[in-house]
Amino acid sequence: MIPTIGIIGGGQLARMMHAAGIGLGLRVRLLAEGPEVSAAQVVADVTVGDYTDPATVYDFAAGCDVITFDHEHVPQPILRELLARGIAVRPGPDALAHAQDKIVMRDRLSALGIPCPAYQAVDTPAELVEFAERTGWPVIAKTSRGGYDGRGVWKLDGPSQAGEPFASLAPGVRILAEEYIPFRRELSALVARRPHGEAVAYPICETVQTDGICTDTTTPAPGLPEDEAEEWQRFALRIAEELDVVGILAVELMEDADGRVVVNELAMRPHNTGHWSIDGAMTSQFENHLRAVANLPLGSTAPRANWSVMANVLGGPRGDLASGLIEVLALDPEIRVQLYGKSWVPGRKLGHVTAVGADLDDTRARARVAADLFMGVPERSHHG
Amino acid sequence: MIPTIGIIGGGQLARMMHAAGIGLGLRVRLLAEGPEVSAAQVVADVTVGDYTDPATVYDFAAGCDVITFDHEHVPQPILRELLARGIAVRPGPDALAHAQDKIVMRDRLSALGIPCPAYQAVDTPAELVEFAERTGWPVIAKTSRGGYDGRGVWKLDGPSQAGEPFASLAPGVRILAEEYIPFRRELSALVARRPHGEAVAYPICETVQTDGICTDTTTPAPGLPEDEAEEWQRFALRIAEELDVVGILAVELMEDADGRVVVNELAMRPHNTGHWSIDGAMTSQFENHLRAVANLPLGSTAPRANWSVMANVLGGPRGDLASGLIEVLALDPEIRVQLYGKSWVPGRKLGHVTAVGADLDDTRARARVAADLFMGVPERSHHG
Repeated sequence: MIPTIGIIGGGQLARMMHAAGIGLGLRVRLLAEGPEVSAAQVVADVTVGDYTDPATVYDFAAGCDVITFDHEHVPQPILRELLARGIAVRPGPDALAHAQDKIVMRDRLSALGIPCPAYQAVDTPAELVEFAERTGWPVIAKTSRGGYDGRGVWKLDGPSQAGEPFASLAPGVRILAEEYIPFRRELSALVARRPHGEAVAYPICETVQTDGICTDTTTPAPGLPEDEAEEWQRFALRIAEELDVVGILAVELMEDADGRVVVNELAMRPHNTGHWSIDGAMTSQFENHLRAVANLPLGSTAPRANWSVMANVLGGPRGDLASGLIEVLALDPEIRVQLYGKSWVPGRKLGHVTAVGADLDDTRARARVAADLFMGVPERSHHG
Repeated sequence: MIPTIGIIGGGQLARMMHAAGIGLGLRVRLLAEGPEVSAAQVVADVTVGDYTDPATVYDFAAGCDVITFDHEHVPQPILRELLARGIAVRPGPDALAHAQDKIVMRDRLSALGIPCPAYQAVDTPAELVEFAERTGWPVIAKTSRGGYDGRGVWKLDGPSQAGEPFASLAPGVRILAEEYIPFRRELSALVARRPHGEAVAYPICETVQTDGICTDTTTPAPGLPEDEAEEWQRFALRIAEELDVVGILAVELMEDADGRVVVNELAMRPHNTGHWSIDGAMTSQFENHLRAVANLPLGSTAPRANWSVMANVLGGPRGDLASGLIEVLALDPEIRVQLYGKSWVPGRKLGHVTAVGADLDDTRARARVAADLFMGVPERSHHG
């Protein structure tokens, strides 16, 4: 039998997973936060419920062969009880712990010898200052759990700011102090891995972040030496293996002006830096995530064009999506569009566009022009 | 607002339309023959009901901005009443009449000067014999309405067989007698057209039929002179324009040994000969059908590789799909698979595979090997 896959979380990642699973004949069940969230609009079998409520999750999972996720926020005790009930959880709780807690992640990666910034778990402003005096100001502070899209991250310039991260800490959350990396750009190493070890790596992706939110990505990362790209593909495969990740693992990287590359974070689900693969790779990250989770052989990650550039569509001055959709499709018949079915909120990720092409500058310009047109933002420089 | 599209019919075409519509942010509602038919398994908003029952269709359509179809079988009076109620129907009833009735189609295409076989509507075996004596035996007889996948078509070798087509004619159905074309191969000209005339043409596709069922297609059609390919693209665009087709129009063609090409049939929906476009074109036929129906600008039909070969997966000796899926994905990491969520029945279309590549023979072999492996049929010659 082709397995029934339960996806917990109804965001755009679940939505795009479902689109990719249709061709494989997979049955998808969705546990969604509400009846109108992104994925709930397009999946046939939807349960609306709270993923932090144990009974809700157990009832949902009873009809599934395997559980996977739109996000990494399902509590560990629930994940472990699912395993105890004989339901496959992919990625499993031991792996997910590294995406849920940045201190656990740093300790593990450091033990594996994967390049990371200097770091220390700190419990008081004084410990944070002591760390910073040793590594140098500014210093980065992050909540160990619960941060995303720039939230739960502080860049602290001196001792007077050291109290900020501790001001409203949730119970059980600690502060991770990290060496500040004056990064020139961010990169991402994306791999997919099956339960018993078969794994594939996507080309390394360059990502441009603005205010902590990914605005566009270019794949492969321009100018990255081939041996370094291969080294980070191997690191990412090794992390997936050592942490027993099943599905997509995204290793977010920072590269400084000298070419030093260190791990920023891990994500164990399809990732914004892999959205290009829907249109730019032989097999998308969403399809390979489902293949991995369903324990099916993985598909080729080979690029379908020299360059793939994805640009996020955020809530912008235009104030709607429908008029932008017409203009974007009319402007560029080769542009690829993914909308997430979300209502317009300023700055919210509402969708993305992807351009593929032979020339880097042209392809980048096409993606950026299309995203700007969608958002209604004034023209910016579309080269470089 | 981005429109809500109502699709009547829950087969694999509706299923693949839905997959294509997710990225465009379109809302899809489905009127399905049953709760477990192909598309009903994957669409969020499903009404189960009979598309020949007027009240069922009107209730369904009331929540939609536009109605389109998985098939051409919705009765004309229902389609016309939808228009009277102010609901857009795309393609509309006037266009659909040419896909529903082969005599209407032949009369119209002949009037437009589009190459067709000699033909005549006949009401008795004697009229059929008279036609055949004039054009030569064998002769083709077709029911004017209701035939598909080889049903409702007869090749008659002489007068003694002339009664067969009339043996069990449904009310209102006539017999179309046609000149027999000893065709060397079949071709297909696929176009997409918006309500006010914007239209795009896909490359001409070669299709191999066995027992009236399409087994595989190669795009572009090998060896077809460029000027002939362009001529048939223009003919297909002209037919779409003259018949006011909105959405995909497939013009099925027959080519004889001398290179004479004539129209076989018309289909006004995504078509088996366009399935290659999911993986082999910048914009799939399913996406362009939805764009056309939603009156959005159409996407590029440019091929993504030199050759795209699609092979249908029929119910074969293997008797299931799950084991075949694992073997096929394991054998060829670049093969693309679409399964339709259908239960195994001998000879039934259960899915298809597509290979894209630079070399014709290799690409064909990959698609045919994958389809055969899926079906469990013994090895055949995979070249030529």
